[in-house]
Amino acid sequence: MKIESLQNTNVKEWCKLKNKKDRDQSGLFLIEGEHLIEEAQKQNLIKEIISCEDTLDADFYVTKDIMRKISSQVSISSRVAICYKKKEEEIQNKILILDNIQDPGNFGTMIRSAIAFGFTDIVASFDTVDLYNEKVVRASEGMLFHVNVVRKELLTFLEEIQNDYQILLTDVKKGKNIKEITLQDKIAIVIGNEGQGVREEIKNMASQFIKIPIQKTCESLNAGVAASILMYEVAVRK
Amino acid sequence: MKIESLQNTNVKEWCKLKNKKDRDQSGLFLIEGEHLIEEAQKQNLIKEIISCEDTLDADFYVTKDIMRKISSQVSISSRVAICYKKKEEEIQNKILILDNIQDPGNFGTMIRSAIAFGFTDIVASFDTVDLYNEKVVRASEGMLFHVNVVRKELLTFLEEIQNDYQILLTDVKKGKNIKEITLQDKIAIVIGNEGQGVREEIKNMASQFIKIPIQKTCESLNAGVAASILMYEVAVRK
Repeated sequence: MKIESLQNTNVKEWCKLKNKKDRDQSGLFLIEGEHLIEEAQKQNLIKEIISCEDTLDADFYVTKDIMRKISSQVSISSRVAICYKKKEEEIQNKILILDNIQDPGNFGTMIRSAIAFGFTDIVASFDTVDLYNEKVVRASEGMLFHVNVVRKELLTFLEEIQNDYQILLTDVKKGKNIKEITLQDKIAIVIGNEGQGVREEIKNMASQFIKIPIQKTCESLNAGVAASILMYEVAVRK
Repeated sequence: MKIESLQNTNVKEWCKLKNKKDRDQSGLFLIEGEHLIEEAQKQNLIKEIISCEDTLDADFYVTKDIMRKISSQVSISSRVAICYKKKEEEIQNKILILDNIQDPGNFGTMIRSAIAFGFTDIVASFDTVDLYNEKVVRASEGMLFHVNVVRKELLTFLEEIQNDYQILLTDVKKGKNIKEITLQDKIAIVIGNEGQGVREEIKNMASQFIKIPIQKTCESLNAGVAASILMYEVAVRK
């Protein structure tokens, strides 16, 4: 189908997906570019493909002006796709838990690293940035199609898993070097907000406080980097 | 001194510092917020402080409107400062080498991790994003005041150091697990562009190809994360 009017109903619906509210209501989100489309196809999550070039395979063909309106990027892609959100799945042995992560780039980077290091499940607090925010999608480099992200009230969730999982939480003062920790099979790593860290009531749920040894000049690592190094350590120790 | 006009010459000069060209010409750059000001003060790099609140110490007091014009952030800070760029220093034993890094957030994150893991020198190609770009400054969390960033033509620089330094370069295919590498005292880690990786002619300069073992589903790590894990490995192995 060919669309040439910026006022077309489909175009309006696609543009709405820039808002979290509309993504939540429709259960849909938008991705841009070939790499993401390829990853979404692997998981059968594509509803429809929109192209601004006749030569490419698509469900809808639109003008460059329409594509510019749909896209959130400075240089528009030739194809974008509308995807179904992933269904939540059962949680496995290695969990990354996110307490109020606000930076979309950090969230996306953590998803990418999680898949790289075999953490297929991420449990995020309700106040963590939306998984389907276009910057999260982009920074995840398509890995969001492979990860199981579940939203939970973290305190309740940690109470449920605390007998089964070793809950690791970073603390610069009382934390033990991650290298010196005996790791169990079932592990949950908790990463806190970029500015405030992990909330106090959640800190109380830790099985073990850990730290990544760093030079004194530097107060802390970027949240995405800290999460990645901890998951890397767990992956290489197994 | 109190400034109330948006047309004031100082205000115009400060706003110009948003452009790389003007930062290069003046040798100055602008930082926002108390944390960065504190870090800049430690290094004696502050030329003047500008405040939009009478109660705070400053060289210039300006209106909120002027501050909004100077600032690059959505929620303006109470104080910003004009800083002198750091002088280039002599290079030590551990170098992070950046070949055409384009994302300011990645560059800032790498600076933060470099200081965390004792890499006090960064050698960046001329096409790497500007160190004094406000997003780089912000993402570095003040660590840019502690790092020695030097711009070089990388090929020439690598030729100069190749007899003295172990030049480590990531390669997913032929790289050896970083854990299995014998590390020398003088180490240079080369990180390439986010999309294209390291240029071929620079690849030829490697003493050793390395890799961070990751799951097959994930093609690669974020450049900032990869750099951080490699520097972490070097730091903990010493």
